[in-house]
Amino acid sequence: MSERIRNSILASKLMSAEQAAEIIRDGMVVGMSGFTGAGYPKVVPAALAARIGEAHGRGDRFSLNVLTGASTAPELDGELARVDGIGFRLPFNTDPTMRAKINKGEAEYMDVHLGHVAQQAWSGFYGKMDVAVIEVTTILEDGRLVPSTSIGNNKTWLDIADKVIIEVNSQQPLGLDGMHDIYFGTALPPHRKPILLTAPGDRIGEPYLRVDPAKVVAVVESNAPDRLGHFTPPDAISKKIAGHLVEFFRHEIRHGRLPPDLLPLQSGVGNVANAVLSGLREGGFTGLTSFTEVIQDGMLELLSDDTITIASATALSLSPEAVQEFVDRIDHYRSRVLLRPQEISNHAELIRRLGCLGINGMVEGDLYGNINSTHVAGTSIINGIGGSGDFARNGSLSCFVTPSVAKGGAISCIVPMVSHVDHTEHDVAILVTEQGLADLRGLSPKQRARTIIEHCAHPDYRPMLQDYFQRALQDSRGKHTPHLLGEALSWHQRFLETGSMRA
Amino acid sequence: MSERIRNSILASKLMSAEQAAEIIRDGMVVGMSGFTGAGYPKVVPAALAARIGEAHGRGDRFSLNVLTGASTAPELDGELARVDGIGFRLPFNTDPTMRAKINKGEAEYMDVHLGHVAQQAWSGFYGKMDVAVIEVTTILEDGRLVPSTSIGNNKTWLDIADKVIIEVNSQQPLGLDGMHDIYFGTALPPHRKPILLTAPGDRIGEPYLRVDPAKVVAVVESNAPDRLGHFTPPDAISKKIAGHLVEFFRHEIRHGRLPPDLLPLQSGVGNVANAVLSGLREGGFTGLTSFTEVIQDGMLELLSDDTITIASATALSLSPEAVQEFVDRIDHYRSRVLLRPQEISNHAELIRRLGCLGINGMVEGDLYGNINSTHVAGTSIINGIGGSGDFARNGSLSCFVTPSVAKGGAISCIVPMVSHVDHTEHDVAILVTEQGLADLRGLSPKQRARTIIEHCAHPDYRPMLQDYFQRALQDSRGKHTPHLLGEALSWHQRFLETGSMRA
Ligand SMILES: CC(C)(COP(=O)(O)OP(=O)(O)OC[C@H]1O[C@@H](n2cnc3c(N)ncnc32)[C@H](O)[C@@H]1OP(=O)(O)O)[C@@H](O)C(=O)NCCC(=O)NCCS
Ligand SMILES: CC(C)(COP(=O)(O)OP(=O)(O)OC[C@H]1O[C@@H](n2cnc3c(N)ncnc32)[C@H](O)[C@@H]1OP(=O)(O)O)[C@@H](O)C(=O)NCCC(=O)NCCS
Repeated sequence: MSERIRNSILASKLMSAEQAAEIIRDGMVVGMSGFTGAGYPKVVPAALAARIGEAHGRGDRFSLNVLTGASTAPELDGELARVDGIGFRLPFNTDPTMRAKINKGEAEYMDVHLGHVAQQAWSGFYGKMDVAVIEVTTILEDGRLVPSTSIGNNKTWLDIADKVIIEVNSQQPLGLDGMHDIYFGTALPPHRKPILLTAPGDRIGEPYLRVDPAKVVAVVESNAPDRLGHFTPPDAISKKIAGHLVEFFRHEIRHGRLPPDLLPLQSGVGNVANAVLSGLREGGFTGLTSFTEVIQDGMLELLSDDTITIASATALSLSPEAVQEFVDRIDHYRSRVLLRPQEISNHAELIRRLGCLGINGMVEGDLYGNINSTHVAGTSIINGIGGSGDFARNGSLSCFVTPSVAKGGAISCIVPMVSHVDHTEHDVAILVTEQGLADLRGLSPKQRARTIIEHCAHPDYRPMLQDYFQRALQDSRGKHTPHLLGEALSWHQRFLETGSMRA
Repeated sequence: MSERIRNSILASKLMSAEQAAEIIRDGMVVGMSGFTGAGYPKVVPAALAARIGEAHGRGDRFSLNVLTGASTAPELDGELARVDGIGFRLPFNTDPTMRAKINKGEAEYMDVHLGHVAQQAWSGFYGKMDVAVIEVTTILEDGRLVPSTSIGNNKTWLDIADKVIIEVNSQQPLGLDGMHDIYFGTALPPHRKPILLTAPGDRIGEPYLRVDPAKVVAVVESNAPDRLGHFTPPDAISKKIAGHLVEFFRHEIRHGRLPPDLLPLQSGVGNVANAVLSGLREGGFTGLTSFTEVIQDGMLELLSDDTITIASATALSLSPEAVQEFVDRIDHYRSRVLLRPQEISNHAELIRRLGCLGINGMVEGDLYGNINSTHVAGTSIINGIGGSGDFARNGSLSCFVTPSVAKGGAISCIVPMVSHVDHTEHDVAILVTEQGLADLRGLSPKQRARTIIEHCAHPDYRPMLQDYFQRALQDSRGKHTPHLLGEALSWHQRFLETGSMRA
């Protein structure tokens, strides 16, 4: 038996990726591991894609419902989408091939709060799960599994799937052993109990996943790194955004509204959120903690010098250089990083109790503080809402960050009315662009509009927003949330027609 | 000392409503009791309104920030709005005079999740609170307060206000004593602990409110009932809506996805939600429980014959006849009703743990499952989001109910795109009109559109929706959430121009 597959029953199920892929058939609901490009299966999806391609070549139907933790990588979503192997996908995707299929209407996609997925799967919202395909670092003697770089929904998929395929990836660092905390106390109502976690570093579970060996139909070896892209290095724009946030946090600390070590930070996916975290380093804060979904490069930097002393997440989403730093100093990070199932990292109860300070990227925001995190011009999805809603709704301070313009200035990220709403006016406290910070706490819609225009809008679009708002104040039927309905979405329409929102 | 004011220190502060109103001055932040027309102060607001009217007569500025639990009644919002005494109002209002001021742009209004108010007030979102005006049933010997028909934010206002005015209302039944459960364990992060409630009937606090007697600046006697309107008797439309829901619940029970006694019910405000509850009675369910904000007539009916065995709420919002029934059989109800602070009745942690089954009214929904609970044609507010978001996001099954048309058929409650979003596509599982029930669980946006058009739309509007959807499928730039941006809000625009959404 290999060093990584130490249980004899499971070792006896070793087979090739091609053989394992044979187990998956048309129409199945398949749960896969993977969260923000980390810990997804590396070889079975490609073998499956080949199989699907052949079936389609023969004119046979072959389409799957694919459920994951969150986004994966080209080896999974990319390969399967390329052969039209995914008919239905949830809860989050960032793969460009898959995204193109979704936006062409060739695949169905459901965008789900990451903290809701396990509960909804257990409650039968997505039908019976046929097969789970889960990457792990090691199979222990007793059959328990050392998770890899993400946990996501793996515990749930292992529990509810009829059959399980395990990929053992020898590139995942053995040093990950001990960094996971799998909570086995969740249940469906009316059987739920309080989850007794009161600080981001609390251990409430066990380091290993469990699987019923009788359900394991295949064990497959792989040897490939998580294929993660590079983050855009923080530019002048994101440094300014971070600067405004740091100034605001300092101000709140001075007024006693935030503790000096802030509150557990959540930081969203994307370049901007990543850059903002780097920027926090300049803030002179110490002893920070994080209770979040994903540890990106920016968070690792903060962990490297103990600006953040403990980070709880469900995935390590690191660039190749950051992976190297992580592996080189794994003993430093092992005592500072805890990976949990996403039903815990994104749990309403815990986010509310800890009072997380959420910092999430966005596509656009409107005058009244509604946020679009997902759709370009209301119809094409970029990624998905991810866990931003879990934190924006239930944390204690919900911040959204974006450059004030996109596409070289052709798009204003502050618009009269957002073309899709992911976070309502009720869930947004702080809005930040490189232009400044709008503090929306305790403000009515019209008060919000004034501060957003003044502090967040790009100077090129400020007069247009001002003009819309003034005319709406004048002509809107109702003046609680003034709008000119015939014009509210005209900026997006103009962008579609002319390539620019400029009048 | 009167039977209702048994503490000598507080009794010594007895004065008239007019004298008490003198304490409140222009520009103050005032926290008042009151939740869905129950337990609001009955006499100080009117005296205050008189004072404000006089000040305005002299040309003086006099405008207040008024914070409550939720909606009050003509004696509070109505009186103060009439004299333009409220410059800023939160978190919920149903008073027509106040609503008119808001929609004319003459008063600022902030619509807040009811479960967020206490936390935001504590965190300084609304500024320092100058005065609290709180109705109670009795002042006990030791100075503790027997709450009246609602608790709302009373605990928080008593804690954070600089000064306190207490109204002792001798019309509130003495039998309320013992029905309240005030939890004193909340804190701001990072000091929060798990709230150890695991069933709707669990007592986790004490029956009485506490107040620092040094802060009490006035005690005022009142003698007036909660002035609650009548509910529209359930009509054929709402009976059909209830029927669809009952059928769905039975179906889920048969498939093991809901327990036979369902899960703790939350039922929203309004006539439709009230009628649906009455309809549940026909469902043959027994041993139901409720964890909700407000007990309306429909819920009382279910409690009267033990269809519901325990109901936890923050307010008793009953019609005059239901009040009579309640008082007549108060011993029956005392062991079945628990009133809690709204930070507990609407707490994310508890709603998630209990897995509440939320049933809320709505203004309109769109093809993709987004819900507008608050705005007519995107600009005029009706009431507010109330607690619907607390339950829709964090409960286990989020249902929204509405007749398929409003205003005699001139308005379709199913539209291409809602004109305001209060509940996003991610937070809506079940949509019900008298036409039928759309089960949106596990569906992509386009799949949702098909089922909503088929099951929920009124036949008069179904072809128009079908037509929009087909053309959007064809011409939308992105086909994940197909829309024609130039047309998406045209139904509302047409309604504003012609008085009807019909083409
Ligand atoms: C909104 C989101 C896409 C921003 O991502 P980002 O990497 O920080 O920001 P960028 O500025 O690089 O924008 C990403 C893309 O969106 C485009 N974009 C940004 N704002 C836009 C707008 N208003 N209209 C159209 N496109 C826009 C950018 O041009 C860029 O496109 P490109 O890749 O073709 O260059 C990202 O934060 C996200 O997916 N959020 C939702 C999920 C989430 O919040 N998760 C949190 C926890 S999991
Ligand atoms: C949405 C809501 C207003 C519906 O109230 P309801 O009493 O059940 O429903 P009704 O059908 O009687 O409608 C109330 C009014 O809204 C109007 N209305 C309903 N749908 C409408 C629509 N799509 N467009 C315009 N007006 C509409 C009705 O015509 C009626 O107006 P009227 O009073 O002038 O006759 C109510 O549920 C609400 O305020 N919800 C938000 C708060 C909430 O959910 N709280 C839950 C816990 S506190």
